[in-house]
Amino acid sequence: MNEIILQKQKQAIEILKEQNIDMWLTFVRESASIHDPVLDTIAGVNVTWQSAFILTASGERKAILGSLDIANLKDAGTFDDITGYVQSIREPLREFVQKHDPKTIAVNFSKNMNLADGLTYGLYQILLDHFNGTPYGERLVSSENIVSALRGRKSPDELKIMREAVIITLEIFDEVGKFITKGKTEKEIAQFMTERTQARGLTVAWEADSCPAVFTGPDTAGAHAGPTDRKVEGGHLINIDFGVNYKGYCSDLQRTWYILKDDETDAPAEVKRGFEVLKTSITKAAEALKPGIKGVYVDAAARGHITANGFDEYPHGLGHQVGRVAHDAGPGLFPAWEKYGDLPFIPLEKDQVFTIEPRLFVPGHGIVTIEEEVVLTDTGIDWLSQRQEELMLLR
Amino acid sequence: MNEIILQKQKQAIEILKEQNIDMWLTFVRESASIHDPVLDTIAGVNVTWQSAFILTASGERKAILGSLDIANLKDAGTFDDITGYVQSIREPLREFVQKHDPKTIAVNFSKNMNLADGLTYGLYQILLDHFNGTPYGERLVSSENIVSALRGRKSPDELKIMREAVIITLEIFDEVGKFITKGKTEKEIAQFMTERTQARGLTVAWEADSCPAVFTGPDTAGAHAGPTDRKVEGGHLINIDFGVNYKGYCSDLQRTWYILKDDETDAPAEVKRGFEVLKTSITKAAEALKPGIKGVYVDAAARGHITANGFDEYPHGLGHQVGRVAHDAGPGLFPAWEKYGDLPFIPLEKDQVFTIEPRLFVPGHGIVTIEEEVVLTDTGIDWLSQRQEELMLLR
Repeated sequence: MNEIILQKQKQAIEILKEQNIDMWLTFVRESASIHDPVLDTIAGVNVTWQSAFILTASGERKAILGSLDIANLKDAGTFDDITGYVQSIREPLREFVQKHDPKTIAVNFSKNMNLADGLTYGLYQILLDHFNGTPYGERLVSSENIVSALRGRKSPDELKIMREAVIITLEIFDEVGKFITKGKTEKEIAQFMTERTQARGLTVAWEADSCPAVFTGPDTAGAHAGPTDRKVEGGHLINIDFGVNYKGYCSDLQRTWYILKDDETDAPAEVKRGFEVLKTSITKAAEALKPGIKGVYVDAAARGHITANGFDEYPHGLGHQVGRVAHDAGPGLFPAWEKYGDLPFIPLEKDQVFTIEPRLFVPGHGIVTIEEEVVLTDTGIDWLSQRQEELMLLR
Repeated sequence: MNEIILQKQKQAIEILKEQNIDMWLTFVRESASIHDPVLDTIAGVNVTWQSAFILTASGERKAILGSLDIANLKDAGTFDDITGYVQSIREPLREFVQKHDPKTIAVNFSKNMNLADGLTYGLYQILLDHFNGTPYGERLVSSENIVSALRGRKSPDELKIMREAVIITLEIFDEVGKFITKGKTEKEIAQFMTERTQARGLTVAWEADSCPAVFTGPDTAGAHAGPTDRKVEGGHLINIDFGVNYKGYCSDLQRTWYILKDDETDAPAEVKRGFEVLKTSITKAAEALKPGIKGVYVDAAARGHITANGFDEYPHGLGHQVGRVAHDAGPGLFPAWEKYGDLPFIPLEKDQVFTIEPRLFVPGHGIVTIEEEVVLTDTGIDWLSQRQEELMLLR
């Protein structure tokens, strides 16, 4: 794992040069309680006291931290140049920064990008105090473009892990497809998947109370809700949103089944039509996806196909990046809604991994939703997940 | 658990009145990635999109959040008055705030108190944007005094859980005392305690790589480091720092043993003297502890006893509060070092739970450290932990 962190540090230094930013300062404290996720990418440790993890465009990698945190960082092996302090970080921090005299210092705040917004407002004020009497407080800029590029551009090692995570996830989907029957509750189905995950020594990709999220029938909560005691019945569409955390990287996939009524041998026409419309919306998104395009157009390709066929539009974005967290940072396949800020309008890049996850509602039956994962190539995409081509029928 | 959250909300409303603050606004997004710990105390859920959890001095409890997050909050049952949105939180947030026209709005930023500093700088900027054209951006104040009082003043239900957590922790210390023998490594000892914790269906109180922290002999890393392959030998002092997370609350205790050499029947005089000095330093701290005193004086009582007896002072504070996290917020038993900010100088209150954890080094043998937990009463303290009175001898 720490080999990947060293790779990402090198990648970050290249990104600093590319973006003409002299220094990137990740400033944290008590990071197990309020955790700046940048630490997972460039440090691989948590700290107790105020700490600075610094990368420079000139290639330096410097950590300044409380003396009792040093041993852990040495164990992690992600920084060689380490300065410890007992009483205050101020002097060693000022000294290092003054020595380099950076014209710009990126720190982790961002309106648009949660995962580049790990610097709390109190810590930001402390940082300004530390820099008091120097010009550096006025040279702080957002690290969002660094974080976006660094998290987004997956290395071959990262992609290898993420492909394996997808394969494991689809295995568990196969297993649960054999487990689902009429009368089982959403909670029982979720519990089965949790056990299959734990049996592999893994954890789930997001919070356990909604991973997996299981929705059966026409009266479900929609998305982002935990499983209930609702039972699987004939005539239900059932869909599951699920991922695993494998070697520090997440998967995020959805699959949909139809539960045949006793007298049915196939799904009703409106259900089949809903499935086909949804599947085609994914194909249209995938055809639009390539480096340089803005996510808003990809979302529109899928959304437009769904509404053109008479279904309500889905109340969320088409897809997001995936990486160390299921909802990863950076541009996404989002509509132009205020809550998405600038993220729909940033051109996409090679080696970014996205979900594609439209949904639509078939009245009387439930929700059809498929979520696939793709990686951007030079000219288009590769599928990380083997696509769900058919509505799976269960009794 | 959610019964406790409802109790804490009521307590928070009383604290708002007491502190003459009209409104407390916890503003978050993607809270599983960057987590404002206030959520655990007053909401009990995570959210995906920008969300506001609001308590008012007039007694209102209001949540405004993305529509797909509503079901989870309803399941948690911690807010009844819930407004959902699809595109932007701005209008429902402004509407609610304008209706109440608060003179002060506490939000979660703090230089001194990490656990009251969950508002990221990017979210703070977004909040100012939402309030643009209103007077509310200028009425924001730090919630640190609210968070300090709310986390610190344990309810009877909270204290009951915390006492149980301490009892379980001491049971596991008893078990490991029978497991430690010469030749075992720090890692093996840690692994044993991890298994004993898991066997009870619990998790450890802080990060698994340093909980338990096990240190044997004179060449140990000190504190806050993970266990190593170092083996227990005769003549070693061995100490362990460990806690469990039980029903959402943490314990945090340390115990010390001495490993007899083959020809010894008792610990050497200098080891016994170190143990007695350390134990007495805890007694002196406990005698000083009562509501109204400042933590800096309590730290000085223990620190002074240790240095007066010729040992080096410990390179950290004497003790911190314990609660939902092992290092909880608010005033602590800290020396007047810059990194502790104002926290050594805030008068202590009834029902706060503190650790007392001095340490000293006995050359050639290792570190003596005992960590106890106490709760402040009307006039002094109650011990939550049964004190370590004797240096435990092992072969």
